[in-house]
Amino acid sequence: MSEIIATYLVHDRKGNLEKKAEGIALGLTIGSWTDLPELEKEQLKKHKGTVITAAELEEDRDASTYLGGKHTKGLIKIAYPAVNFSPDLPAILTTVFGKLSLDGEVKLVDLEFSDSLAKHFPGPKFGIDGIREKINVYNRPLLMSIFKGVIGKDLGYLEEQLYDQLAGGMDLVKDDEILFENPMTPFFDRVKRGRQIINLLKEETGKNSLYAVNLTGRTSELRDKARLAAEAGATALLFNVHAYGLDVLQSLAEDDEVPVPIMAHPAVSGAFAASEFYGFSYSLILGKLTRLAGADFSLFPSPYGSVALKRKEALGIAEECTVSSVYKKVFPVPSAGIHPGLVPVIMKDFGNDSIINAGGGIHGHPNGAKGGAAAFRSAVDAVLEGRTLEEKARSDEHLEKALKLWGQYEAAK
Amino acid sequence: MSEIIATYLVHDRKGNLEKKAEGIALGLTIGSWTDLPELEKEQLKKHKGTVITAAELEEDRDASTYLGGKHTKGLIKIAYPAVNFSPDLPAILTTVFGKLSLDGEVKLVDLEFSDSLAKHFPGPKFGIDGIREKINVYNRPLLMSIFKGVIGKDLGYLEEQLYDQLAGGMDLVKDDEILFENPMTPFFDRVKRGRQIINLLKEETGKNSLYAVNLTGRTSELRDKARLAAEAGATALLFNVHAYGLDVLQSLAEDDEVPVPIMAHPAVSGAFAASEFYGFSYSLILGKLTRLAGADFSLFPSPYGSVALKRKEALGIAEECTVSSVYKKVFPVPSAGIHPGLVPVIMKDFGNDSIINAGGGIHGHPNGAKGGAAAFRSAVDAVLEGRTLEEKARSDEHLEKALKLWGQYEAAK
Repeated sequence: MSEIIATYLVHDRKGNLEKKAEGIALGLTIGSWTDLPELEKEQLKKHKGTVITAAELEEDRDASTYLGGKHTKGLIKIAYPAVNFSPDLPAILTTVFGKLSLDGEVKLVDLEFSDSLAKHFPGPKFGIDGIREKINVYNRPLLMSIFKGVIGKDLGYLEEQLYDQLAGGMDLVKDDEILFENPMTPFFDRVKRGRQIINLLKEETGKNSLYAVNLTGRTSELRDKARLAAEAGATALLFNVHAYGLDVLQSLAEDDEVPVPIMAHPAVSGAFAASEFYGFSYSLILGKLTRLAGADFSLFPSPYGSVALKRKEALGIAEECTVSSVYKKVFPVPSAGIHPGLVPVIMKDFGNDSIINAGGGIHGHPNGAKGGAAAFRSAVDAVLEGRTLEEKARSDEHLEKALKLWGQYEAAK
Repeated sequence: MSEIIATYLVHDRKGNLEKKAEGIALGLTIGSWTDLPELEKEQLKKHKGTVITAAELEEDRDASTYLGGKHTKGLIKIAYPAVNFSPDLPAILTTVFGKLSLDGEVKLVDLEFSDSLAKHFPGPKFGIDGIREKINVYNRPLLMSIFKGVIGKDLGYLEEQLYDQLAGGMDLVKDDEILFENPMTPFFDRVKRGRQIINLLKEETGKNSLYAVNLTGRTSELRDKARLAAEAGATALLFNVHAYGLDVLQSLAEDDEVPVPIMAHPAVSGAFAASEFYGFSYSLILGKLTRLAGADFSLFPSPYGSVALKRKEALGIAEECTVSSVYKKVFPVPSAGIHPGLVPVIMKDFGNDSIINAGGGIHGHPNGAKGGAAAFRSAVDAVLEGRTLEEKARSDEHLEKALKLWGQYEAAK
């Protein structure tokens, strides 16, 4: 049967998880069951939610003091028949977490789509393999960087930064997520000039690269804007998906006239994933659902910087991006606080199929963005060669300076 | 200057709120300031975020134990120049709460739009006055009810319920938010049959009423579906706005070819408003922004039922719906757990300009939905006449039975 199975983490005051689960399964489907006449039961059976499990969890720490009284922590799994909803994410989220999101300490931690339901969603258009083909790099994590302070700056400033970062060895550059339509660096100018710079570098060095331009504006205008951007030469689009909705991402991913990779930014997602008790798990929202809706890249806070996710959460997102599934794989992009000294631990945590994404760790380099980029490339080479960064730094001035400035990651951190 | 002022509730580990505020104001605009050359300062000044206040709050209860160490609670207000973003909600939310939502214990509790920025948003198309004109009721709260268990039921079942509820005295009936496009009760059939029943009742009783049909499906299809629904005779649309995004609501509200009131349902909003530490305040998301984006009604959990908001939060939403502003007023609809015995406290808490919305409190009445509706009407009359419910119940069998079954609201609850 086509269905979706939702897993909830609950902290329940009443302590009867079975009863709570049964209440959810009925409340979000047919309303009542035991009192129904047999004929109606027969008629409604295929619409009824089913409790799969309702299991108490051990408390790794007791939240009861905070919650103001003894609470039972548990995992509840409920199967919802797909016949109850249309196969789109707004309907699915409303079914499994509409009213329920407002009803006490309930967090939606996972959704499992049956095969027939999964078919309604596109997954990434390019995925990891498609992106690697575009960039023509197969044996190492890709390197990405972001612009430094672009608000209030003109196109020339942007172009210079883009050139320097790519020339230094970055594979991708992305817009700042807070760069919107503006008269100094209009969207289509960024698209066109970005493409020219990428083409120029291709001529100069033979290197392919991508520049993710921030697709912004009213929801109703995005499709046409994305199509025009593709026509104008866009090589990738950055998209603040959680400021719009996953269904909007899906429409872009499904659109054959937008043959351009989409990079999902996590902006605003902390609002519904940061809490231990409420909202969604990061692995669901930035991992599984972002993949199902069709992003080719998923950015998320790295476990290393000041804006940091817990290591387990960050790895959980990456796992959902790359685990075997009916969809292509999404490039996980752990971001924030990344410098060359972190490269060995990033590659250990996230593997080759990930993107090392730096901001300050590029621009703050004593030799400028080019030097920063070179230091990152050198650090990646060291790991692939099985050498330590110190060893590599002896023959590489850029890496040496980076390590001196930022140090190496201390595992104890 | 055109700007938006964001108010954040923070729980800060470092305890230096001024510094934290300055970091946010710069980090979400131009990145850095003190080290910039004078010329660049001059050039970037109009883009710089400004700290308005950073004030420590007294702890009403100490969250530090839960957060794992001493935290300073405070309110931070920051002004962001509108020149930094396009005047749409995705850009605004990304600017004021994009990266920041992922950065520790920060909750966005309010947004103040300068007049020139506010002009870019429509507000309700009808608002409280427009809805009252449609229903032709001016001196009392409106009465609304929802269907009982419609999943898996056919159109005839729905029609009968709709007729009974409206004939009993309800002013509005709304679809269940989990009723999606389905073969047994297709959307356009509900629209057309609903309109026929409303017209029939108008002939029979002279009474005007509205039926809010659930507008669902892919985001990209909603505009056309809403236009067609209006043509087919829809009198109102229910919309799970938070499963889609406020910007999508705005497009519907702005559309002249959708001359139909829009009822915003709070489904999924608990995911980003339930936490004390993260996300948005309910008054911002279900009140101010829902109004600015153009809903005519805003549903939210009442403070009385089992799915309940704190009284202060529920009143805060209603306040934002009805406070004097450049926009029309939104009907606040406190929902869940409502029965006739609650009418005096609802009218005291929410005033005449609100909607009393019942489900079980109608359908569970010993005399059926008609009896339940009559009991509600009678309870409202009692309050308007300055009588107690007990007094009124002596001459009203429906109210008497309702009070016997559900009792009256105990203020101590």
